[in-house]
Amino acid sequence: MSLPTRVRRGCPAASVHNGPVADRTDLPRSSVRHGGGDPEEATSLPVGTWPLLRFLGRITPADRDTPPVALEEIRLPEDSLPDVAHAALVAVVGDEHVSTERRDRVEHAGGTSYPDLYRLRTGDGSRAPDAVVFPGTAQEVSAVLAACVEHGVAVVPVGGGASGVGGVDPGRGSFAAVISLDLRRLDAVRSVDPVSQTAVVEAGVGGPEAEAAFERHGLRLGPVPQSHQQATSGGGRFEENIVAATVATPTGELRIGGRVPAGETAAGPKVLDTIIGSEGLLGVITEVTVQLTRRPRLHRQETWALRDTERGFEALRDLAQQLGPGIMPDISRLSDANETTTVMSRSGIAGIPSLGVLRARGWREPALAVFQLEGQDQSSLRFRRRQLAKVLKRHGAARMPDSIAEHWLRNRFHGPHQRDRLMDRGVFIETVETATTWGNVEHLHGAVRSALTETLGERSWVQCHVSHLDRGGASLRYTVMANGESDPLAQWERVQAAASDAMIAAGGSVTHHQGDGGGRILRALRAELDPTGILDAGRLRGHG
Amino acid sequence: MSLPTRVRRGCPAASVHNGPVADRTDLPRSSVRHGGGDPEEATSLPVGTWPLLRFLGRITPADRDTPPVALEEIRLPEDSLPDVAHAALVAVVGDEHVSTERRDRVEHAGGTSYPDLYRLRTGDGSRAPDAVVFPGTAQEVSAVLAACVEHGVAVVPVGGGASGVGGVDPGRGSFAAVISLDLRRLDAVRSVDPVSQTAVVEAGVGGPEAEAAFERHGLRLGPVPQSHQQATSGGGRFEENIVAATVATPTGELRIGGRVPAGETAAGPKVLDTIIGSEGLLGVITEVTVQLTRRPRLHRQETWALRDTERGFEALRDLAQQLGPGIMPDISRLSDANETTTVMSRSGIAGIPSLGVLRARGWREPALAVFQLEGQDQSSLRFRRRQLAKVLKRHGAARMPDSIAEHWLRNRFHGPHQRDRLMDRGVFIETVETATTWGNVEHLHGAVRSALTETLGERSWVQCHVSHLDRGGASLRYTVMANGESDPLAQWERVQAAASDAMIAAGGSVTHHQGDGGGRILRALRAELDPTGILDAGRLRGHG
Repeated sequence: MSLPTRVRRGCPAASVHNGPVADRTDLPRSSVRHGGGDPEEATSLPVGTWPLLRFLGRITPADRDTPPVALEEIRLPEDSLPDVAHAALVAVVGDEHVSTERRDRVEHAGGTSYPDLYRLRTGDGSRAPDAVVFPGTAQEVSAVLAACVEHGVAVVPVGGGASGVGGVDPGRGSFAAVISLDLRRLDAVRSVDPVSQTAVVEAGVGGPEAEAAFERHGLRLGPVPQSHQQATSGGGRFEENIVAATVATPTGELRIGGRVPAGETAAGPKVLDTIIGSEGLLGVITEVTVQLTRRPRLHRQETWALRDTERGFEALRDLAQQLGPGIMPDISRLSDANETTTVMSRSGIAGIPSLGVLRARGWREPALAVFQLEGQDQSSLRFRRRQLAKVLKRHGAARMPDSIAEHWLRNRFHGPHQRDRLMDRGVFIETVETATTWGNVEHLHGAVRSALTETLGERSWVQCHVSHLDRGGASLRYTVMANGESDPLAQWERVQAAASDAMIAAGGSVTHHQGDGGGRILRALRAELDPTGILDAGRLRGHG
Repeated sequence: MSLPTRVRRGCPAASVHNGPVADRTDLPRSSVRHGGGDPEEATSLPVGTWPLLRFLGRITPADRDTPPVALEEIRLPEDSLPDVAHAALVAVVGDEHVSTERRDRVEHAGGTSYPDLYRLRTGDGSRAPDAVVFPGTAQEVSAVLAACVEHGVAVVPVGGGASGVGGVDPGRGSFAAVISLDLRRLDAVRSVDPVSQTAVVEAGVGGPEAEAAFERHGLRLGPVPQSHQQATSGGGRFEENIVAATVATPTGELRIGGRVPAGETAAGPKVLDTIIGSEGLLGVITEVTVQLTRRPRLHRQETWALRDTERGFEALRDLAQQLGPGIMPDISRLSDANETTTVMSRSGIAGIPSLGVLRARGWREPALAVFQLEGQDQSSLRFRRRQLAKVLKRHGAARMPDSIAEHWLRNRFHGPHQRDRLMDRGVFIETVETATTWGNVEHLHGAVRSALTETLGERSWVQCHVSHLDRGGASLRYTVMANGESDPLAQWERVQAAASDAMIAAGGSVTHHQGDGGGRILRALRAELDPTGILDAGRLRGHG
C-alpha cells in the first residue's frame, strides 16, 4: 500500500478544532482508545453536530454507537521477538522496561491515521510491535539500537514532543521482529538559559511539561524560525525551534548543530534539519536544545469575515506579504466557505446569528478569518491591530464578534476525541494537507475539493482551512467526512489517491515528495547512518 | 594545510566597510587584480587611513607600494588537461567556451582569502586550474560533469550570486587535472511571479542584474527566512531565499524543493538546505526559485552609541529578544570599542567630533550601533523607531548624528578594493568569524580578541562587530590588521590557528564544524551524488 498523500502520523486531526501543538504532544499516548482507556478525557461532540452533518453533508450516522472492541478482544500477532534479542534488550534497560504486555503492544500498534484507528477499534492488532522498550537514558537508546542491529530487530521510535516522532506504524519489513522504542522516560528538562532564551530538554518530554518548566522563567517555545507562520499554534513546536540535537543512530551517536546564525549556516550544509525532519528514519533524537522566546503578557483575538474564500486568500496573502512576521497576527487562520459554516454553527452563542448577518448582506459563502495577536505591551498590540484592520478592510472584510475566535481558540484541541465519537457512529473522517504558491492557491483549493467531493459522493462534507502561510504561499488542510462504506479501508485508500492525484495535477505539494532529488538523498543518509535499515523497515521506499 | 577557521571563499572582506551582499555577487570576478585588471574599480583608501593605522595599531606600512606582479609574470603550472578530456569538453560546450588562456586561468586561481591573494600578487599561480569551462545551459553543466567523471578531471564550480559558490581553490586532489566550471553564461532571470513574489533565475546571474529585474516588479530578494537577521545586508542573499533548486551532480540532475510551508517541512527531511550549503561540494546549482519581497519605499538610518561593548551586546540582545524580526531594524550592526574608533574616525564630518562628545562624557570605550529601518509607510517606521529608541534608552544609549550610519551604509562595499591597497603596502589583513549564544558572547569576544592580539604582536589592530543576531545569540566578525611578516603565509596560518583554538576554548562556533555528526553526513551525501569525488578534490575531508 502506498501512502502518496500523507497521513499525519501522530496527528489525529479530526475536526475543525484541532491544531498541531496537540498533535505532537499529549495525543499519541492517549488518543487510541480501546477498552475504555482514558475515559476521563473523552469529549462529547458539541450539541447539534449530528443534525449539522445531516443538514450539510447529508451524512447519516449509524443509529447507535459501535464502540471499539475491548482491549482483550484485539487480535495480536504472536510475539516473535527471539529470546536472545529479548534478553539483550533486558540487559540494556532492565526487565521492567521491556514490555510484551497486551496493553503496551496495543498502545503502540500503529499511528493515528484513520486506517490505524479503524483496524484497532475493530480488533485488528496485526500491526502491534512484538515488544515495547522504554530506555531511561540516551546511552540506553544507543545500546538498544546496537542490540537491535545485532539481532536483526526493526525499531520504531515513539517520542514526546521534543523527539520529532509521533506514533507510527511499527512496520517490520523484512525483519523477524519489531519493537517500539518509547522515549517517555527521557523526560528531563535539563537546563534553561534565560539569557540566551534556550533550553536543553530530553526527547521524551511532553509539550505541556516542557512549557511549564519554561514558564517559570517567563519563556515559552519560540516562534517558527523559518518565518513561516503557524496558523494554528500559539507557541511553537519543538521541531521548529531545535538549534542542536543529540541523535542516536544504529552506527553511533551524533551531536549536530549548535549556535550557527545565518551568516554561517550559509557556509556549511544544514544537516540538522534533515535529521530532525526524518521522523526517526535516520536516527533517534534523544536530547535537543531549543530556542525559546518571552511569554507574551497579552493575547487578543479578532474575528473577521471575507465575502468569499477567494477574497480570504487574497487578504491572507496581503497580510503575509505586506505586514510580514512580527507585525501580522501570531495566529491567522482562514476557513473556506464550508468550514466557515461548521465553525460558525458551533461557535457558541454569537456564531449562527453572525452567519445570518453575513447572509443578509448577500454574502452567500463567506470565509471566516480568526486571528490571535500576542505581545508584551498594549501599544504594540494596538499598532499591529490597526495594521491588520487596514489590510483586511482593503479587502472588504467585516468585523465579527471576537467571541467566535475566542471560542475556536479554546476548543481547537478537542478534535481527536470528537473524531473517536464520529467513528463510533460509523462516520468516515480524515484530513489531508497540501501547499502551493499564492498564485496557485485558489486553483488548487478548488481542484482538491472537487476531487474529494467526487470520490466521496453525495453524502459527504469537505471543508478546508489555510493552516500555514508565508510570503510565498500557503498550505491547505482539508477535513473530509462521509458516510462510512462497507469497506472503510478501501474507502480511505480511494480518498487518499484522489487527493494525491488532484494535488499533483493542480500543482500542489504532496507531502514526503521533495522533488525527485529527495529520495536519493535520504537513501544515501540511511546507508551511512542505518546501513542495516532497522529504523526504516519498509518506510523510506515510499517517500521521495 | 588545514583550514580550521574558514576563509570565506568568495568573500574578500577586508575592512570594516564590507557586507555579504557584495561578497557573493560582483566581487569574485573582479577583485583579484593582476596586470591592471578592472582599474576603474580601484578605490583609494579614505584620507587618513595610514596615520590612523599607525596611531591605533602602530602598524608601519612599507614606504612604497609593491603592486601585484603583471599578468604575464604569474607562474602557471603547465596545462595538464589531457587532450582527450579537452576534446570531450569542447564537444559539450564548443571550442570558444573551453579556455586555457592565461587570463582566464589566473582569474580562477584561488579564492579571495589572504593566502590566495598573496600568492597571486607575488606571482605564484600554482593553484590555477588547467582550463576554465563556460557552459551555456543546465544540460551542458550536467554533460561537463559527466565528461569530467569519465576522464578523471576535478571540477570547481564558480557561480554568480545565485549559485551558492564563490571563487574557491581549484584543488585537484588526486586527479590529473582540474577545471573551473564558470557559470557566468547561465545568466537568465527566467520568470518573476509578482503574486507569489518568487522568481526563477539561473545560477550565474549576478546580484545586481537580478535585483534590477526584480525591481521592475517592485520586488527584491526577500528577508532572511530563518528569522535570523543579517546585520550587514539591506536586501538578502540568494542562498537564504532559495525555495527550490535544480542541481547538476556527477550522477545526474536533481530537482529539489518546491513550495513546502512550515507545516510540511516538519514532515520530510530538508535536503535543499544541505545541498545549497555545500558550496558546490555535492552538486552544481544551475537554477533556483527564490522568495522575493516588496521593495521598501522608505529607508531610515539611525546612529547610537552605548557606553561600552558589553552594554552594546546587552542592547542588541534586547532588540532581538523583545522586538524580534519585523519590528527590530532591518540592519543592526554593533561595533566593538576598537571598530568604533576606526568607523567613527572615517565617518565623514560628524564622526570625530561625536567621538569627542562621548569621551567627554567619560565613555572611554564606547560601542557604535548603526541601524537601518525599511518600510512602506511612515507610520510603521515611526512605530518601529519608537520601539527601538525605547529599548536602547533602557541601556543608556546616546543618540548620535544619523550621518554616521548613512556614511557607513554608503561605503560598506568598498572593503575589497581597500584591502588590495593595504596589501600593496605590505599590511596583513584578514577576517575571521565565530558565533555563540548571548550568554557567552562577551566572554567569547574577549577571548578571541586576546588570542588574535597576542599572536599578532604589538604592531596590530583587532576590531570586531556583531554581524548576525537572533533571539538566541550572535556572530562576531573580526578584522585583523598587522605589519606583514617576512613569511606572510606562515603568519596567516598562525593567526587562523590562534583564532580557531580560542573560539573552541571559549565555546564559539568554528565554521564548517557542525558538531561531530556533520562530517559523516556530508561524506554519505558525497558517496551518493559524487562517488568519484570530482567536486571534492580534497576539500570535504577538511570539514566537519
